[in-house]
Amino acid sequence: MVVPSLIRRKRDGAALEPAEWRTLIDEYVAGRVPDYQMAALLMAVVWRGLAQDELAALTDAMIASGDRLRFDGIGRPVIDKHSTGGVGDKVSLLLAPMVASCGVAVPMMSGRSLGDTGGTLDKLESIPGFRTALSAREAEAQVRRLGCAMIRPTPEIAPADGKLYALRDVTGTVESIPLIAASIMSKKLAEGLDGLVLDVKTGSGAFIPEPERAIELARAMIALGETRGCRTVALLTAMDRPLGRACGNSLEVEEALQGLAGEGPQDLMDVTYALGVEMLLLGGVEREAAAARRRLEETVSSGRALETFGRIIEAQGGDAGVIEDPGILPQADAVEVFRAPTSGTVATVDARTIGRATIALGGGRRTISDTIDPSVGFVITVKPGDKVTAGQPLASVFARDAAGIDLGLDALRRAMATDGEAEPLPLVSHRVTLAGVQVL
Amino acid sequence: MVVPSLIRRKRDGAALEPAEWRTLIDEYVAGRVPDYQMAALLMAVVWRGLAQDELAALTDAMIASGDRLRFDGIGRPVIDKHSTGGVGDKVSLLLAPMVASCGVAVPMMSGRSLGDTGGTLDKLESIPGFRTALSAREAEAQVRRLGCAMIRPTPEIAPADGKLYALRDVTGTVESIPLIAASIMSKKLAEGLDGLVLDVKTGSGAFIPEPERAIELARAMIALGETRGCRTVALLTAMDRPLGRACGNSLEVEEALQGLAGEGPQDLMDVTYALGVEMLLLGGVEREAAAARRRLEETVSSGRALETFGRIIEAQGGDAGVIEDPGILPQADAVEVFRAPTSGTVATVDARTIGRATIALGGGRRTISDTIDPSVGFVITVKPGDKVTAGQPLASVFARDAAGIDLGLDALRRAMATDGEAEPLPLVSHRVTLAGVQVL
Repeated sequence: MVVPSLIRRKRDGAALEPAEWRTLIDEYVAGRVPDYQMAALLMAVVWRGLAQDELAALTDAMIASGDRLRFDGIGRPVIDKHSTGGVGDKVSLLLAPMVASCGVAVPMMSGRSLGDTGGTLDKLESIPGFRTALSAREAEAQVRRLGCAMIRPTPEIAPADGKLYALRDVTGTVESIPLIAASIMSKKLAEGLDGLVLDVKTGSGAFIPEPERAIELARAMIALGETRGCRTVALLTAMDRPLGRACGNSLEVEEALQGLAGEGPQDLMDVTYALGVEMLLLGGVEREAAAARRRLEETVSSGRALETFGRIIEAQGGDAGVIEDPGILPQADAVEVFRAPTSGTVATVDARTIGRATIALGGGRRTISDTIDPSVGFVITVKPGDKVTAGQPLASVFARDAAGIDLGLDALRRAMATDGEAEPLPLVSHRVTLAGVQVL
Repeated sequence: MVVPSLIRRKRDGAALEPAEWRTLIDEYVAGRVPDYQMAALLMAVVWRGLAQDELAALTDAMIASGDRLRFDGIGRPVIDKHSTGGVGDKVSLLLAPMVASCGVAVPMMSGRSLGDTGGTLDKLESIPGFRTALSAREAEAQVRRLGCAMIRPTPEIAPADGKLYALRDVTGTVESIPLIAASIMSKKLAEGLDGLVLDVKTGSGAFIPEPERAIELARAMIALGETRGCRTVALLTAMDRPLGRACGNSLEVEEALQGLAGEGPQDLMDVTYALGVEMLLLGGVEREAAAARRRLEETVSSGRALETFGRIIEAQGGDAGVIEDPGILPQADAVEVFRAPTSGTVATVDARTIGRATIALGGGRRTISDTIDPSVGFVITVKPGDKVTAGQPLASVFARDAAGIDLGLDALRRAMATDGEAEPLPLVSHRVTLAGVQVL
């Protein structure tokens, strides 16, 4: 195949043939198309976009580059959730055991933190002993046994995505809606799902801040899923402020455990329930949203969701004692309270500032090889719109040392304004399906 | 340096700092910026273009990556010509000895054929023994001695351009006006010139067919030259039909020898004189165009230009006997005449079709490693606008064998229409200087 002529055609705005995308990906994975040609092509895709059948062919080729999870005869609907990533987003830790407790199989394959947002894998791995590196066969067996596994992408799943993502990360070609859609959906569709719920974040702290573009991404992913036998629904949720109170790995696990025990913050629980309702409806285990929500609430009030989470932790080598005693999670050496500098209304709690400060404290990654300090982060107990009085405690910083405390307090000062009008985004603003976009 | 963030800024339409371009090129040549990052950046440049000071910084960095030719104290103006490349364009073979015979030093550094157009180096190398691979020091010495050398780019000159061009060629990033301007001007400015005349081709057979974009390229190169102590002028010349009659390496050398002997086709001589006049004016050896043209004509009528060419051939190891006997050039085994299928007016002689057919006959390269058969090509004796009668000989095909003859005749059938209105471009249409664009 003459790769330069394909690059030139894409550069000039033409659509490549599906068969050309298949060959390109096959040859790239086989090492016969060099990185420099793929990098130029990816930049041309960032520029020109992809036609619908190009995106479909690219995604299919990425799926076909590896193995799939197989759940034949499992006797339960297989449903997953994917989030585009947010600060304080520990939803997966609550959602997977809750939904699994309702008779849905949840093969939850998550990512690591990179960039401004945290990663579910890093949160789980702050539980002593927790192992996320299951093989495809191990993951399948655990889902069959417990209804859920919480794993990193196995090397067998869409290896083309791993290779392409690593290249995009160093060539300025991450920010492309079709490339993002292909990356997410190639992995999710290889999970052998019956249904998928997408949590697409919007607002200043989101990867794609603008709702219009977030909807565009949602629709691209929904079209890919629905035409490949995977019912797909997306909710747009707010990421102008952190979700819940805790930001940082141990702190978020602790908050998730509180949520599963019925004591989670309202916004975290509302987003979790909204996504869970869609999963139960997609799985056909409930037919009405209100009933689905009651059933999910019941998994919390009965303690069954927490019990399921304990079994998952145990099955994956973790210390389930964390449920009784979150104190076994890594704890920060230094803690300091941040108080309201003036009386007024909390106008903003800027998610991106908090996310970046969490990385700066050591709780996230700048590059994929960085190691993480799970103990550090923030707990922010107010939300935009809350009235506060000068001196009132608004947040705590968890750090390694005094320098970290200073850094954290400074970030809170920049992230939180207490003297303006709050205009937070609606928590769950849109519901997107193949049929269209519904404003909630 | 954090290359991905530079790529993202260029991708998003920002201008990089001059110092950033310098570092990028230095690190790329040193092998510390990988090809895949440079490829993505180059595609972003194709997309977003370059601001004037980015282009200047890129060109300077490419020059600084290598050595320069040095002509200190040579006592003559040092002037070169560069053409963007055309079918049948053997101007350099005539121009260099003519201008050198007028007291101007001409360090003519040329390229190989690649794509649809021929290359001066390949034409010269059809002369038995002719050696174009002179070192920088050899080239300088020959220019001092004979007033002219006709050479390939030495490895010491702008090595960054060599590395970048090889990458652009395989990543679909050749077609960018600033990248073309930087590539040409980095090599030309490293020649230590006092002046440079650019022959920018326009029309269907040109690399950049549209006159507006050709002018844009000319102005970019003129701005680079003039701000770096090299007086620079461009002429836009027609490349909707081949220049002269011969297309193919031996055939073009033979036509150049005819031209130097005063028997060249009118269009070839007119373009050569027009460019030569600019070179003499830039060099200050004449102050008026008419006088410059007379002086150039006198180098032909007196035989001095042909004599100079003979000395250059001899100095570079070639068989100067070619001047008396062009029959020592490689000759095609098969020759066939193409006759007018109908009576009428020659509407087109499509340069691109003829250029591609010359490659298909073996006279050009598809990739840089292809070898060339210097004997093959075309001699086309009519021009758009000529009246012809059915059966009249219009052209000859020179090929290896009967299959080549068929291929050549078919190309001529496609390239030449004898039943329409001729609307050829003016031979020399625009003169571009720092002051502006003059329509001729």
